[in-house]
Amino acid sequence: MGEVARLSFSLEQPLLERLEALRREAGYANRSEFLRDLIRARLVDRAWELNQEAVGTITLVYDHHARGLNARLTALQHDHHHVILATTHVHLDHHHCVEVILLRGRAAHIRAIADGLRRHKGVLHGELSMSSTGKELG
Amino acid sequence: MGEVARLSFSLEQPLLERLEALRREAGYANRSEFLRDLIRARLVDRAWELNQEAVGTITLVYDHHARGLNARLTALQHDHHHVILATTHVHLDHHHCVEVILLRGRAAHIRAIADGLRRHKGVLHGELSMSSTGKELG
Amino acid sequence: MGEVARLSFSLEQPLLERLEALRREAGYANRSEFLRDLIRARLVDRAWELNQEAVGTITLVYDHHARGLNARLTALQHDHHHVILATTHVHLDHHHCVEVILLRGRAAHIRAIADGLRRHKGVLHGELSMSSTGKELG
Amino acid sequence: MGEVARLSFSLEQPLLERLEALRREAGYANRSEFLRDLIRARLVDRAWELNQEAVGTITLVYDHHARGLNARLTALQHDHHHVILATTHVHLDHHHCVEVILLRGRAAHIRAIADGLRRHKGVLHGELSMSSTGKELG
Repeated sequence: MGEVARLSFSLEQPLLERLEALRREAGYANRSEFLRDLIRARLVDRAWELNQEAVGTITLVYDHHARGLNARLTALQHDHHHVILATTHVHLDHHHCVEVILLRGRAAHIRAIADGLRRHKGVLHGELSMSSTGKELG
Repeated sequence: MGEVARLSFSLEQPLLERLEALRREAGYANRSEFLRDLIRARLVDRAWELNQEAVGTITLVYDHHARGLNARLTALQHDHHHVILATTHVHLDHHHCVEVILLRGRAAHIRAIADGLRRHKGVLHGELSMSSTGKELG
Repeated sequence: MGEVARLSFSLEQPLLERLEALRREAGYANRSEFLRDLIRARLVDRAWELNQEAVGTITLVYDHHARGLNARLTALQHDHHHVILATTHVHLDHHHCVEVILLRGRAAHIRAIADGLRRHKGVLHGELSMSSTGKELG
Repeated sequence: MGEVARLSFSLEQPLLERLEALRREAGYANRSEFLRDLIRARLVDRAWELNQEAVGTITLVYDHHARGLNARLTALQHDHHHVILATTHVHLDHHHCVEVILLRGRAAHIRAIADGLRRHKGVLHGELSMSSTGKELG
């Protein structure tokens, strides 16, 4: 954890009680950890707004019977192999499969790859999840 | 402000520095206020998820030449007059106007009214902003 | 409405049925209008991403007993009077009030004003709703 | 693709031009596909709101030096093994790793698992991406 600081701040008594209710409901035993996670979530939002280095996950649902789709998705991934960390594929039923692509790179680059994958015919849904390399999270 | 509590929590030194950068960038002179606002934003999200009493703002952009639209929007607002606090109307150009409707009531009720307004032909855009009565914010 | 085009597109029969279910649930009698609204919502998102001219609504909940807050909020609004279309104020209870500020300007400018208002002590919640001047919505 | 329907709808000429600009910008060669994807994205949103069967991806960034964390995350995943389809793990640097967990189940169940993973000390960021089994997407 490295060097640890201690921070102290004031808040109205009713706001403290509501913070405690939020924390309990979210299942956090530790209030410091809950506050740190609030801060970290804001940091990740800003990293994506500022196009910093980030980690992203693209989830694609597609029909693997769509002609030529597999080849096109694979080619597109190869073009960007230097930012793709790993890919996981699961067969959902006779028609549908889901592919999860984990990437690390500039936020805008990850976004562009997600757009490039999503637009192919046969890709029924594509969703980008924005996360972090962990470096800026302490 | 009523009774004030003091809360203290630990965080890694680099996380503290990043929190400070966030705060400065958002223009907060006061760190306590920045932390309180992070907590309050989460409280408002939860109030809407739990269908508590809330304040909402509906922004409608519409073409006031659309036949019968004004009458229909007014009728719909009258049906819900007990939750509508105020309405403001601005003429944007020869065709378009914007109407802002401020409401107070159960979150789900406010949402239903927004849906009811948005779907009319001639309403080009309808957006709901979720806020709070202030009671749970300290 | 001006000149009207007619657009035709193919979709799988089950997707058509699900589109119909969505439309009925959202209370649209008219399928064309439902499709146009889907397109318009996407257009508004893009206008904000591209920092085009837009309409925005800022909803502020604040404690009007907070010392000096009213004066500061008023001063800040005067600094930006050329982009503020109208302001509506409602007293919620003895302590809290809500103010809705309707603006028209560049998306980034509206965002900056929202940030500037939100950070003041006594402002318990500030939310920006992104809408449109209607011009790009047909 | 099964049986294919053809749908036709009217829209104002300027709205059509703006739809075309959106489509080109998003890189879709095919307008039908762009419209179908707009509809499908809305369907996935509704499936999550209605707690239907869904596919979700949880991305966790964590410090694998955090004492006991690995064991706790593994235990939690085992408790829910019947909804977990696959897990992928990548080492980001000496301290941080990212784990992507692909799940299939009721939307609320997937959400609860994401909350359960996120709150552990050492988990720096947890994000849930909401997708679909593909069944309702045509």
